[in-house]
Amino acid sequence: MKVNGRHYRTIWTEDDAVVILDQTLFPHRFETRRLTTAEDAAEAIRVMRVRGAPLIGATAAYGLALALRADPSDMGLLAAREMLAATRPTAINLVWALDRVIARISPLPLARRASAAWDEAGRICDEDVAINATIGDHGLGLIRAVAARKRGAPVNILTHCNAGWLATVDWGTATAPIYKAHDAGIPVHVWVDETRPRNQGAFLTAWELGQHGVPHTVIVDNAGGHLMQRGQVDMVIVGTDRTTAQGDVCNKIGTYLKALAAADNGVPFYVALPTPTIDHSVRDGLAEIPIEERSPDEVRRIAGRAGDDVIEIELTPPGTPAANPAFDVTPARLVSALITERGIMAPTAEAIAALRMAP
Amino acid sequence: MKVNGRHYRTIWTEDDAVVILDQTLFPHRFETRRLTTAEDAAEAIRVMRVRGAPLIGATAAYGLALALRADPSDMGLLAAREMLAATRPTAINLVWALDRVIARISPLPLARRASAAWDEAGRICDEDVAINATIGDHGLGLIRAVAARKRGAPVNILTHCNAGWLATVDWGTATAPIYKAHDAGIPVHVWVDETRPRNQGAFLTAWELGQHGVPHTVIVDNAGGHLMQRGQVDMVIVGTDRTTAQGDVCNKIGTYLKALAAADNGVPFYVALPTPTIDHSVRDGLAEIPIEERSPDEVRRIAGRAGDDVIEIELTPPGTPAANPAFDVTPARLVSALITERGIMAPTAEAIAALRMAP
Repeated sequence: MKVNGRHYRTIWTEDDAVVILDQTLFPHRFETRRLTTAEDAAEAIRVMRVRGAPLIGATAAYGLALALRADPSDMGLLAAREMLAATRPTAINLVWALDRVIARISPLPLARRASAAWDEAGRICDEDVAINATIGDHGLGLIRAVAARKRGAPVNILTHCNAGWLATVDWGTATAPIYKAHDAGIPVHVWVDETRPRNQGAFLTAWELGQHGVPHTVIVDNAGGHLMQRGQVDMVIVGTDRTTAQGDVCNKIGTYLKALAAADNGVPFYVALPTPTIDHSVRDGLAEIPIEERSPDEVRRIAGRAGDDVIEIELTPPGTPAANPAFDVTPARLVSALITERGIMAPTAEAIAALRMAP
Repeated sequence: MKVNGRHYRTIWTEDDAVVILDQTLFPHRFETRRLTTAEDAAEAIRVMRVRGAPLIGATAAYGLALALRADPSDMGLLAAREMLAATRPTAINLVWALDRVIARISPLPLARRASAAWDEAGRICDEDVAINATIGDHGLGLIRAVAARKRGAPVNILTHCNAGWLATVDWGTATAPIYKAHDAGIPVHVWVDETRPRNQGAFLTAWELGQHGVPHTVIVDNAGGHLMQRGQVDMVIVGTDRTTAQGDVCNKIGTYLKALAAADNGVPFYVALPTPTIDHSVRDGLAEIPIEERSPDEVRRIAGRAGDDVIEIELTPPGTPAANPAFDVTPARLVSALITERGIMAPTAEAIAALRMAP
């Protein structure tokens, strides 16, 4: 999507290097960063210069290609896979992308491996863009229907966390329908939840919507229910880290509270996702998905701009205990529909099983 | 309650001065501040060195007594009332306390007015303490019942914002049952919602619970629903700024989301309040209570400690629009009961009307 009026993806190639946006500096500074070795790629994933499952996968795939340039042997391949897979141990896309590249290049002679891996990484990126664009096209229909009813008034969409283009290669998942609607001239306005503790709403979603020119307003995570009570939200669209075979949705902490408020006020609650991210091995999200407990310092401390500097401040009294569950599970009963690259789907075991049967 | 092992109220007298805790410095610094003129008292209310309806009322009452020391005439009285009433225009307790002092001292000769006002301000403080202590005693029964069921395991109580002793003269409203239980040796543990945008949970509730020695854990506002889903919350207790004749509860933004989660998970949701704060002139909270929209800078900026300094940082990209509704309304259907100084009450029009009939 656009930054300063120019189109960007979150990852691309320039000559022999891979270039990324350094998201650790967002929204306070916009800098690109060149990756020329597998170690560069691993570091970028580890310290979260890139984040979001699809983008992590794409970066890891390029990391493997960079490693093969230095050492195309089977030993080199395995060592690079091990290093890259260890950067964010819970990211399923990471291992999927690495193994896809390995399956592609293993049969090849050593001399052809690096360039074949490079091409495969590029295909992974292009496929991600195509899937998200198609999610956007399907979601666009939902927004268009509301817009027709509102006769020119903006369609108010609430989103939580960042399931934006910055988490993918382009378009994003939850944001794809929003960008498609905006680009099609449909008036949209986005309520951007701040999404404590890591503030991805304020830091990332507000930044990318602002750069692309989509009207938006930042609110605290506490405010969404009130806005729904007052009729100021036409629909909610969020992303998901993991959706189960019965349609339970694991996503950033606080998603469940917004889903409850949407149900209580008759506001449609949509989850946008690529169907390959559905985890068919899990049914009951609440009973079966372990929730990552992250560092309490993410709750106790926060970073922002003070003049030209980015500094971190402490919020709680010294020594205050804090807990930091990173995700929650929204039961399928609170989800209106799933927006996927294969169409709009009911969040039911039947619909999800049918999808699997007819790939 | 206790600070550094010593008992404090939020306001008290020392010789001819009124002393307050300067809450603008919390939790980063603990300083008391002497008020010796009505202007001092007005400034303390205006810049929120004191906050919370009961404490604002007590401070205003003492402010009037200080004014009468300088000028006990009717003209002096009216000028002081006007100045003090204008400090926080929407605080009902403020005007109530001023008019109570005025009614008490108006009939008196000028020479006796200042000391009579001083005594009346003291009575306002003592009555607030007594009401909150009684709320605590009634709420204690609810906690004791859960404790008996849990056989020695801590009772987990979630609270939102600060309805603690710092908002009153002592005990607090939502915290009174918690302090009573802790002091009675019942094991309690409090989940403290951070309560963006002004972070009263992290800044005030965590501080006062920590100083008094009550076990607690700070969580982001997003996390409460997840904890309830996992059975980690036994009850919710919050305060209220305004409760209507049918039991709708207006309180700090985000309260409604926690009430929805409590209802969805069968967790009791209690609201602690002095019955004089019930607004019998309003029935439907959603339709009738206008919600204060505060400065968007409260969303965009946040203050905290950096080393020895307290500094403010900017969170959102420059120029980001933000909205800041300060309160929301929790419909009575989501409230399990009201904890008042007159007992535990159903949040129904009938129970609330009966209370009014039998004062």
